[in-house]
Amino acid sequence: MTAPDRSTVAIVGLGAMGSGMARALLAAGLDVRGFDLSRTALDNLAALGGHPAGSVGDAAQGAAIFITVVVNARQTEDILFGPEGAAARLPPGAVIVSCATMAPDDARRLEARAREHGLLYIDAPMSGGTGRAATGELSFMASGHPDAFAKAEPALDAMAATLHRLGDEAGIGSAFKMVNQLLAGVHIAAACEAVALAARLGLDLQKVYDVIRVSAGNSWMFENRVPHILDADYAPRSAVDIFVKDLGIVTDMGRATCFPTPLAALAMQMFVMTSAAGMGRDDDASVARFLAGLAAVELPSAG
Amino acid sequence: MTAPDRSTVAIVGLGAMGSGMARALLAAGLDVRGFDLSRTALDNLAALGGHPAGSVGDAAQGAAIFITVVVNARQTEDILFGPEGAAARLPPGAVIVSCATMAPDDARRLEARAREHGLLYIDAPMSGGTGRAATGELSFMASGHPDAFAKAEPALDAMAATLHRLGDEAGIGSAFKMVNQLLAGVHIAAACEAVALAARLGLDLQKVYDVIRVSAGNSWMFENRVPHILDADYAPRSAVDIFVKDLGIVTDMGRATCFPTPLAALAMQMFVMTSAAGMGRDDDASVARFLAGLAAVELPSAG
Repeated sequence: MTAPDRSTVAIVGLGAMGSGMARALLAAGLDVRGFDLSRTALDNLAALGGHPAGSVGDAAQGAAIFITVVVNARQTEDILFGPEGAAARLPPGAVIVSCATMAPDDARRLEARAREHGLLYIDAPMSGGTGRAATGELSFMASGHPDAFAKAEPALDAMAATLHRLGDEAGIGSAFKMVNQLLAGVHIAAACEAVALAARLGLDLQKVYDVIRVSAGNSWMFENRVPHILDADYAPRSAVDIFVKDLGIVTDMGRATCFPTPLAALAMQMFVMTSAAGMGRDDDASVARFLAGLAAVELPSAG
Repeated sequence: MTAPDRSTVAIVGLGAMGSGMARALLAAGLDVRGFDLSRTALDNLAALGGHPAGSVGDAAQGAAIFITVVVNARQTEDILFGPEGAAARLPPGAVIVSCATMAPDDARRLEARAREHGLLYIDAPMSGGTGRAATGELSFMASGHPDAFAKAEPALDAMAATLHRLGDEAGIGSAFKMVNQLLAGVHIAAACEAVALAARLGLDLQKVYDVIRVSAGNSWMFENRVPHILDADYAPRSAVDIFVKDLGIVTDMGRATCFPTPLAALAMQMFVMTSAAGMGRDDDASVARFLAGLAAVELPSAG
């Protein structure tokens, strides 16, 4: 029933990001197959008009574009090249679009393995959050062979507001993403440290937010995360443990290349401490709760 | 010759910021007297149409508004209450506008001393840089008695694009400024760490700038300082030693209130290391040169 000129896109990983991306792909008129370990996620895909698959392999069968939206390099590698992986079922010349945040070396290794299977590969870490995933307004920091971009174009067009094409081989996109994550992680931790200190000093935190937002101390993350603290809303838009992972990759990269990353290392420890205190799955603005809690300083409370 | 309804404004400290502010005050039609230890600064003031004074006391004599634009609390205190200080020469009810970045406790102490002399006081740390000083577009994080604001209004109107009125007593403005400086200092150091790591990874730094600017890793400081690195231009718009000082105040405040400020402490050490390496008077983006130099990583070079 599928029109021959309509690309079949498979997407594996239907969490909040993957589901949003599936929605954007469907809205663009693409034929979307998906797989996730969660039955609920599969039902949601069906309700959107997509086709739930019974396994990674079934999702991959005959797909022209295969998108992975999982947490890290290990999960991506299992999905692509594990015993029941996608690589054996994808048709020759299909393109893999890998969206996990990972070390550049991992991205290069996955691209090389894809090539051995006759598959194209795009190293395509993204940012933008779940809201922008669903509206097709993600930002991708992507690199890969021009043939891979050409093949993936219908899906990338549907998902991206901004597609940064950063080079012709995997690893470059991931390196840009890790530089971004270094800054993002340090800025979240700094926002939390600054707001907790402001609370310790007895300042009006709403005013702190209003003033800093228009001052030289502002950051994208300050503007985005501090409202969570003001609202005492720590439901995870992005969890503490994500930055334990991402800053871990950054500091591993620094060690591997013998380059110092002191702020990334300290910010990672702040996320680790917050996770150790039981808030690993809460919103990453919880670093402020951790710091305030050390000193019995009161932050805004819910309700 | 001065019209009786024209406020006489005195300004002490005619460095780049103070000279810019004098220009903005003159442009607003105010009568401006100034003092600085630099003869050149005084000549420049005369060329702008202001009146160079022979001493702090001569500048203060009869002035309705007395603005101090110096580096720290100690210099401000000397100017106001030293042996040849302004307080003894200012008319009762004159208002002091103190613009130095300082600890809130220092601001409160200076306000109390001013009150003993029958003087009003505004705790008015600012931001915006020398360009915005000259065009009257500074931002002030100010607190003080409403009578003080009323008295200082002609000068504040002339100098400020944004006047944040944060409370009715000194100390609050300074506390907001220190929270801002915590963030600003950490963000500069993070921008330098990220760009130096990107160079180590062999990324195109102009692309890094273009991509991060529109991504979640952006900050006001990243956007403002990274061009200095790209242009290899380390002429000081704001010097490394300014953040040695300001983050020193932040960490002192943390210690005094028994509140942890780990990122501010580490960022301060990065500025200290950069200063120790001989770059204390260079632009604060020099932290990138310090980190890159440790690992013989090349950053853009001049010309």
